[in-house]
Amino acid sequence: MKSEIITIGDELLIGQVINTNQVYIAEKLSSIGVSVERMTTVGDDMEAILEAFDAAWIRNDIVIVTGGLGPTHDDITKKAVCKFFDSDLVSNEEIKTHIQELVKKWNRQWSQSYEEQTMFPRKAKLVPNPVGTAGGMLFRESVPSGEENNKFFFVLPGVPYEMKEMVDRTIIPYLSTKVTNSVICHLTLRTAGISESMLAATLGNVEEILQGAKLAFLPSPTGVRLRITVQEKDKTSADRLVHEVERRIRAKVQKFIYGTGEEELEEGIGKILTEKKLTLAIAESCTGGLIASKITDVSGSSNYFERGIVTYSNQSKVELLGVPEELIRRHGAVSKEVAEAMAAGVRRIARTDVGISTTGIAGPTGGSAEKPVGLVWIGYSDAESTFAIRFNFGDGRRRVKERAAQAALELLRRKLLKIGS
Amino acid sequence: MKSEIITIGDELLIGQVINTNQVYIAEKLSSIGVSVERMTTVGDDMEAILEAFDAAWIRNDIVIVTGGLGPTHDDITKKAVCKFFDSDLVSNEEIKTHIQELVKKWNRQWSQSYEEQTMFPRKAKLVPNPVGTAGGMLFRESVPSGEENNKFFFVLPGVPYEMKEMVDRTIIPYLSTKVTNSVICHLTLRTAGISESMLAATLGNVEEILQGAKLAFLPSPTGVRLRITVQEKDKTSADRLVHEVERRIRAKVQKFIYGTGEEELEEGIGKILTEKKLTLAIAESCTGGLIASKITDVSGSSNYFERGIVTYSNQSKVELLGVPEELIRRHGAVSKEVAEAMAAGVRRIARTDVGISTTGIAGPTGGSAEKPVGLVWIGYSDAESTFAIRFNFGDGRRRVKERAAQAALELLRRKLLKIGS
Repeated sequence: MKSEIITIGDELLIGQVINTNQVYIAEKLSSIGVSVERMTTVGDDMEAILEAFDAAWIRNDIVIVTGGLGPTHDDITKKAVCKFFDSDLVSNEEIKTHIQELVKKWNRQWSQSYEEQTMFPRKAKLVPNPVGTAGGMLFRESVPSGEENNKFFFVLPGVPYEMKEMVDRTIIPYLSTKVTNSVICHLTLRTAGISESMLAATLGNVEEILQGAKLAFLPSPTGVRLRITVQEKDKTSADRLVHEVERRIRAKVQKFIYGTGEEELEEGIGKILTEKKLTLAIAESCTGGLIASKITDVSGSSNYFERGIVTYSNQSKVELLGVPEELIRRHGAVSKEVAEAMAAGVRRIARTDVGISTTGIAGPTGGSAEKPVGLVWIGYSDAESTFAIRFNFGDGRRRVKERAAQAALELLRRKLLKIGS
Repeated sequence: MKSEIITIGDELLIGQVINTNQVYIAEKLSSIGVSVERMTTVGDDMEAILEAFDAAWIRNDIVIVTGGLGPTHDDITKKAVCKFFDSDLVSNEEIKTHIQELVKKWNRQWSQSYEEQTMFPRKAKLVPNPVGTAGGMLFRESVPSGEENNKFFFVLPGVPYEMKEMVDRTIIPYLSTKVTNSVICHLTLRTAGISESMLAATLGNVEEILQGAKLAFLPSPTGVRLRITVQEKDKTSADRLVHEVERRIRAKVQKFIYGTGEEELEEGIGKILTEKKLTLAIAESCTGGLIASKITDVSGSSNYFERGIVTYSNQSKVELLGVPEELIRRHGAVSKEVAEAMAAGVRRIARTDVGISTTGIAGPTGGSAEKPVGLVWIGYSDAESTFAIRFNFGDGRRRVKERAAQAALELLRRKLLKIGS
């Protein structure tokens, strides 16, 4: 089945909001074998909305619309969809009861905007919104025989938290029963520490590896992902082919692959630390807590992560990590010696198995010819060795932080797995 | 002038990559008065790409395409655009010299994929890519008089870092000289600590406030933004109207507004701390370094941020913050008493003017009936007072961390400005 995702909102067209809804829905549809053919974004403009509805509804079996169902005056999607399907609005008791319960739970007053949200298109079926007040809609069309055709037009609120609940709880389970397509299967291998061109060169002839599967190279500031896509008659052969291709790719670039799918580097590290029963402490200067924040994004991290120290002042490096003042005076805070002393210090004081550290110049100010913006020393310390590696991550303060954090995590992963660099 | 942004890539349609390119370009076009009418995403499929080019080129004055120019086999945009504008490819000396310089700088080997990137459509003008190997393209069309029409078709690589450089350095300055439209002016007011419905209710009759301007409510997990849009004949009257509307909105909800435009809460806090010459230290448990990371995203934060301590173990709370063991035993680590002791402790030990702290249950495990997942205590301490406030941020580990960090920053802002809650 073919689908299109339409997102509505002026805020999207002027670039104030990143469209995370379409990516979320696309991933879910794709996972059940529905092919997303196109994603369209239009503003809060009746003509543009109707035109987009029309084009999408002709081309596709499934259309999912989000945005513009809120309680404020700029939300016109409900009006538009009523016009498109020639439906009027009637008060819906199920929605009313639901909103009353939410208002009570939230300790709020009933207001006119809640009243308006109880009005629902007569021709639509309700897609329940367990966490919000705007009800979702499903429209079908009758065919000449009087039955409904096999096409589905959903309208959902644009608040990501609400939309996600509705997609996960109602729409995907419902559509799963309707899809009779061939099976599309994806697998993504995540790499770090190698460029797109070098990956392509190391893989060599991809056609030979793929044998009919597709492979995409997806670069990002924190590493290149390799996405394998296969389309087969049934799940068994799709699974078989995708894993065969995975095996061939791993045979060539295994050491750069830190995880699959949505797995972040910090999740892989969490598994390794748990399995090896090792503990970790982190001392950060230029990354400012970003590495600790990533590590603690992982559920269960309290089992191996003991503490993180963000030493933004020289004084705090001395007091909290035992870095000798003399060392900072002689080599500067951004130096191999201080990075090593920070990693060894945090490990010693926290009594953990491993310590890592960062010290660098995130910019945009503070650089010099000898120590330019983007220069970062990453330190590592365990019972066997303590060392630091020099990197240059270019410019852009947040980008430098992000790349430095990823490089520190990748260094940690390779040391834990005893992979040479 | 009207425009459309087309992004190309299978990875976008299957929901593996968030489309940050379109939002970036949309914001830039919007800032020079070019109206973005539509954003379209299609896959690496020749027919779909040509269909999207066709529809966009008919409807608009400006089309900007990104994606599919890379060196790997799944990139077919160059082929598609040559077909669309009926152009062949010729070797381009300017690109060749540029790639040779990059390859030298990067210490890489010349390869077949670089050779292919030197091939460029005969009918296109080069949009230089200072940081990458894929050259950008500008296509124009001749009109019957033999001159070029006033329409612009750009094709850029999809790597965000490269695309941004090209948009900023070349495309926006170039288009600025061509735009003769009325002026669109936006202003966004960022709020925290108030819901969309409560904001709408507090503002009352928006039509009266707006007098022809537009107002959008943009909710997110960290706060609701209010976007004012005006369209006027010239910049002076646009500026006047937008600031008049801003003044009327501030008159009603001033205390919830922490910044404008892209300004994050941490930037506003940085300004206040700098102005008041105050220093800050942070003790984090459940937010795991996220607050410190946000604070250090701001350039110049080393002037007021002294240190951050991520105390993930009870032992580290005792050792690094001087929280009495007895207190943790009696009340538990997630408690008002411990939050207060953490904020006071980090302030005392770091000798800063202000200390803030978080302790809570980010989940998904570790909750109980008495202390559910999402429960977070946020502590605050300065020379005059020390206290902690209880919040419940629902579920979703990263969402709880994000909301707790934002609430801690908002609490800090209000205390610094002596705003009542």
